[in-house]
Amino acid sequence: MRTMRAVQVIGYHQELKMAEVPVPEITGHLDVVVKIGGAGVCRTDLHILEGQWAEKSQVHLPYTIGHENAGWVHAVGSAVTNVKEGDKVILHPLITCGLCRACRSGDDVHCEDSKFPGIDTGGGYAEYLLTSARSVVRIDDSLEPADVAALADAGLTAYHAAAKAARQLSARDTCVVIGAGGLGHIGIQVLKALTPARIVVVDRSAPALDLAQKIGADVGIIADGSEVDQVLELTGGNGAEALIDFVGEGGATVTGMAMLRRAGNYYVVGYGENINVPTIDIVSSEKNIIGNLVGSYNDLQDLMALTARGAVTLHTQKYALDDFQLAINDLNAGKVRGRAILVP
Amino acid sequence: MRTMRAVQVIGYHQELKMAEVPVPEITGHLDVVVKIGGAGVCRTDLHILEGQWAEKSQVHLPYTIGHENAGWVHAVGSAVTNVKEGDKVILHPLITCGLCRACRSGDDVHCEDSKFPGIDTGGGYAEYLLTSARSVVRIDDSLEPADVAALADAGLTAYHAAAKAARQLSARDTCVVIGAGGLGHIGIQVLKALTPARIVVVDRSAPALDLAQKIGADVGIIADGSEVDQVLELTGGNGAEALIDFVGEGGATVTGMAMLRRAGNYYVVGYGENINVPTIDIVSSEKNIIGNLVGSYNDLQDLMALTARGAVTLHTQKYALDDFQLAINDLNAGKVRGRAILVP
Amino acid sequence: MRTMRAVQVIGYHQELKMAEVPVPEITGHLDVVVKIGGAGVCRTDLHILEGQWAEKSQVHLPYTIGHENAGWVHAVGSAVTNVKEGDKVILHPLITCGLCRACRSGDDVHCEDSKFPGIDTGGGYAEYLLTSARSVVRIDDSLEPADVAALADAGLTAYHAAAKAARQLSARDTCVVIGAGGLGHIGIQVLKALTPARIVVVDRSAPALDLAQKIGADVGIIADGSEVDQVLELTGGNGAEALIDFVGEGGATVTGMAMLRRAGNYYVVGYGENINVPTIDIVSSEKNIIGNLVGSYNDLQDLMALTARGAVTLHTQKYALDDFQLAINDLNAGKVRGRAILVP
Amino acid sequence: MRTMRAVQVIGYHQELKMAEVPVPEITGHLDVVVKIGGAGVCRTDLHILEGQWAEKSQVHLPYTIGHENAGWVHAVGSAVTNVKEGDKVILHPLITCGLCRACRSGDDVHCEDSKFPGIDTGGGYAEYLLTSARSVVRIDDSLEPADVAALADAGLTAYHAAAKAARQLSARDTCVVIGAGGLGHIGIQVLKALTPARIVVVDRSAPALDLAQKIGADVGIIADGSEVDQVLELTGGNGAEALIDFVGEGGATVTGMAMLRRAGNYYVVGYGENINVPTIDIVSSEKNIIGNLVGSYNDLQDLMALTARGAVTLHTQKYALDDFQLAINDLNAGKVRGRAILVP
Repeated sequence: MRTMRAVQVIGYHQELKMAEVPVPEITGHLDVVVKIGGAGVCRTDLHILEGQWAEKSQVHLPYTIGHENAGWVHAVGSAVTNVKEGDKVILHPLITCGLCRACRSGDDVHCEDSKFPGIDTGGGYAEYLLTSARSVVRIDDSLEPADVAALADAGLTAYHAAAKAARQLSARDTCVVIGAGGLGHIGIQVLKALTPARIVVVDRSAPALDLAQKIGADVGIIADGSEVDQVLELTGGNGAEALIDFVGEGGATVTGMAMLRRAGNYYVVGYGENINVPTIDIVSSEKNIIGNLVGSYNDLQDLMALTARGAVTLHTQKYALDDFQLAINDLNAGKVRGRAILVP
Repeated sequence: MRTMRAVQVIGYHQELKMAEVPVPEITGHLDVVVKIGGAGVCRTDLHILEGQWAEKSQVHLPYTIGHENAGWVHAVGSAVTNVKEGDKVILHPLITCGLCRACRSGDDVHCEDSKFPGIDTGGGYAEYLLTSARSVVRIDDSLEPADVAALADAGLTAYHAAAKAARQLSARDTCVVIGAGGLGHIGIQVLKALTPARIVVVDRSAPALDLAQKIGADVGIIADGSEVDQVLELTGGNGAEALIDFVGEGGATVTGMAMLRRAGNYYVVGYGENINVPTIDIVSSEKNIIGNLVGSYNDLQDLMALTARGAVTLHTQKYALDDFQLAINDLNAGKVRGRAILVP
Repeated sequence: MRTMRAVQVIGYHQELKMAEVPVPEITGHLDVVVKIGGAGVCRTDLHILEGQWAEKSQVHLPYTIGHENAGWVHAVGSAVTNVKEGDKVILHPLITCGLCRACRSGDDVHCEDSKFPGIDTGGGYAEYLLTSARSVVRIDDSLEPADVAALADAGLTAYHAAAKAARQLSARDTCVVIGAGGLGHIGIQVLKALTPARIVVVDRSAPALDLAQKIGADVGIIADGSEVDQVLELTGGNGAEALIDFVGEGGATVTGMAMLRRAGNYYVVGYGENINVPTIDIVSSEKNIIGNLVGSYNDLQDLMALTARGAVTLHTQKYALDDFQLAINDLNAGKVRGRAILVP
Repeated sequence: MRTMRAVQVIGYHQELKMAEVPVPEITGHLDVVVKIGGAGVCRTDLHILEGQWAEKSQVHLPYTIGHENAGWVHAVGSAVTNVKEGDKVILHPLITCGLCRACRSGDDVHCEDSKFPGIDTGGGYAEYLLTSARSVVRIDDSLEPADVAALADAGLTAYHAAAKAARQLSARDTCVVIGAGGLGHIGIQVLKALTPARIVVVDRSAPALDLAQKIGADVGIIADGSEVDQVLELTGGNGAEALIDFVGEGGATVTGMAMLRRAGNYYVVGYGENINVPTIDIVSSEKNIIGNLVGSYNDLQDLMALTARGAVTLHTQKYALDDFQLAINDLNAGKVRGRAILVP
């Protein structure tokens, strides 16, 4: 049996450990084995190590971590028609059933029977990963797996919310983005590509706002307590038509709701605090609060199309797979610019 | 100068008083004077008398109350082309400007410069009322103003939320209605007319549920603490695709959110308590919270089309205009079945 | 090897012939073998025998005909999770790949790699049929396969067009239906279930119009040359908001387009003649011409939900499988009321 | 009475003539008199002189021509709240009633009682023009009336079709534009601003294609008979998701329909020949043919928002009002680059 290197969770509140494990094999007709080209190191990985996902995922230890993956198709099951050996691919984070109502409607994220490699089954801090034909998206020849891997989950989440907002926006509208960090960075680029609406970004960090304006934001506002007033002033006192909240804590939801005009849409992406708003306010203003999870397989296809034409870029800091602990430490210490990527 | 009888607010925490006031006259090109055929007596009228609206409306006392009105066109301004003298009409509750962005988009409820007869200007507890060509909807010959007047505001609110929900529903979906009272009663009939989805009604009152099932509900559930479990059982453990909450207090929002499936829509109509939900729940379930105000002019046209074909009916209890105090007292005492209507 | 009876095309311009052939077996993970409970006999079957489909389908003779099928699940592949042995099912007419862009978007009818049992591979004039988990829709306990089989293709086509039209219609609108025959009959019931719009049916046959009005049409118009004028009169001279043309020949497209109001939608279902209209007319009226093929898998699910609650019914005339030639002869002779169904 | 210069049609097949006529005055509450800053000279003006519009418009001669107008608000009626004296404005080509169903739905182009200055009432080849508050759109301070006037009709038509197409397009889609002339030029810029879809332009002129690619087209294809094959090759043999036909004659509709994929949308803007297509092709491919007239008031607002941020530009060649005959002659002789504009 062939083996490979894989970085595994061996216990909560312990460090990850490199192991030698079997290379996954094709057993189902739609199985796809991917040779990993890059795996994103994400804050969620830190939370997994702290045991925060243990109960929810019910995963058996040890298992291989890593849920933002891209690479090359290594082997395919007999019914796979959408990719072939050697294709460059990015992996949708979920393996979905394809048969439930959600899957049949293109809304596969709400699949009634999905798996989540890196969370509840073997992930991508490894040389190979087992997924499904339903989860692989071929990427353009001009793109490299290690460069796009981090778009598989964090980027896809930002895309999903921004694309949903864009469908409601026109040239006369204003869309506020709260939070110009990792997700916000992608969200702003997506908005820029999909809608002519004015993009106003709110963040506590001046350098983050500078960057935001370089990649598409029309206005940057420092979150210094005056941000609601500034948004109202920019919008003739009415407020913005849409707001995407990539923060969701520290009071963001209260200031965010106050920045919206009547019948405006509040897209929740970041989380932490409660939405706590009187029903009378929801009723009298007709504001809507819209939930946002990671994007669908179709969203990932669209995001890769944008990326192929240069509309979405991401700064990455690469580490050899063997340096996984350094990557984790750097992330923990706030030393990563953009996203850390493990390259086997 | 011709005069007419009108029931007026002369002071807060005082009783209404019948007065003799001038009949309103046409001064603007789009003005319409309506001879009142029926004016709904609404719980909001009690709140006005208690002073709850004083600050918000900034209305000068005395003024004529009554915001659910229907009748006959008595006189029209020179630019009015949509109605003529003698037409039977129901009145949209707002007088809107017609020129702001909201008005130009058919979303006139969010007009930037509207008036609200009966709330901030003269209303319909009177023989005549001044409104605009933009606010009058011709009703079918088979309908009588006094029978439909209460649909002008309460009914229109229920229509608006139910029609919004119906646009997202298909034959396989379930829509829960919380509250089978006045608004719920209209909402159920509207859902029945607009969507093939299964309608499940939750209420504390068995007779209200019986009535709900007679007018279109497929299932009635007593709100006895087991209602969430019952909805989950009816929906294969998934929850409903949509829920319209006509209550909005007494814990309705918590049980309501728990009845929804992933990506489900929560339509808020009733109010009282706060929506208080962790952002992580909104994000991980992708549930949406949708605000609902009164319907637009187009909604009222559609509601009148449904009413003309018998799809929406309303029980009314009529009082002569002179008996206004009796109507108010009966409403206060819970003695009105359906809606109380003043008939001049 | 187990064998079964199957009615096969052995040559064009020859009669069908009963054969003894192997019962199909599970070979793929998503395969489903269905024991046929009913197979619709359709005019398309006559056309196949006349060789009209030979070039397009490229099917090798002999093969088993029959493309409107329902029955019970007999065996399933290892990855099938949506049905189990013994389930009552109706079969979507296509076997689709599940991986192409159309399939991933719920628009499986435009699958880039589909098969069509009864047309280009073995169909349902037989005891068993091989299909896919992607093509089986469980039907309600209250329904019988032989009663619903004909909804699998003809009924699904009518549903698809009517549901598409209904999404654009409101209570104030008028939808004209040209043709109250087999498809029109289903289309009218679907419109009735999905939209409050007024349904006006145009047909040459008075009994067909009578039936149409019994199942939901609001108005019936004899196609005697005055039908355009009658529709215009019914609609205040403006024309209808939507029209579904189940005929598509004999001048239907010309009179149909003339019955539409500005910005109205013309849904083409029947075919035969050309749409031939000056571009200036399309431009100046903003009318739209909308193509309609058979419905998707989701459409079939929705149609079965409507059927389960009695909103859609179909008259059928049943024949034993051995009497296939009688059924064909009766259909050819116009002696079938509703749809002919072969029952093995 | 104050008078002004105005260029008038005094007879068909005669030259236009400068006349001294009364300055229009405010008589209705919503009237607006605009001091003209620029009036587009359009091919339609040539057709008017040839009598092609005489029967349709029923206009009484002499009258002032010119239907693409912009300028400054000179005077307003008593109910006008959206503009004030001195505001820079562009004029929607229609004066609409504001009360019919179309107007109340934001679809004012289909107003049941509209006027069309320059076609059936006094237009903008003059110093002043009478319009309505419902027709004036304030433009950004950075724009000049003479620079944007030609966007009022030709540009608005292109915007309307391109925006309608963009609502259906995603990053993976291809939109073909047939015709890179005046309207196509605007349409391409609008598509570029509103959608990430790939834009493929087909034209007979190489310089027109060069320009198209400078302003946003991704691919230019010479219409030399191979254009259908080239589009199919670019789209993996499937065809494009959408096509906007700004030509509508010379065989454009046949080649255009052949460039579309299944379920694709054909947007008709240019006119001349007939759409002539077998119903069976429409049915089996589910292609749609979408009519497009000039845009709505809201469309013009959106177009002006795009223009204000530089996303849409137009080359203009200006003439003094007194040189109207020269402008007409230059247009007739094909000597105008971009659009000819009369400046009073």
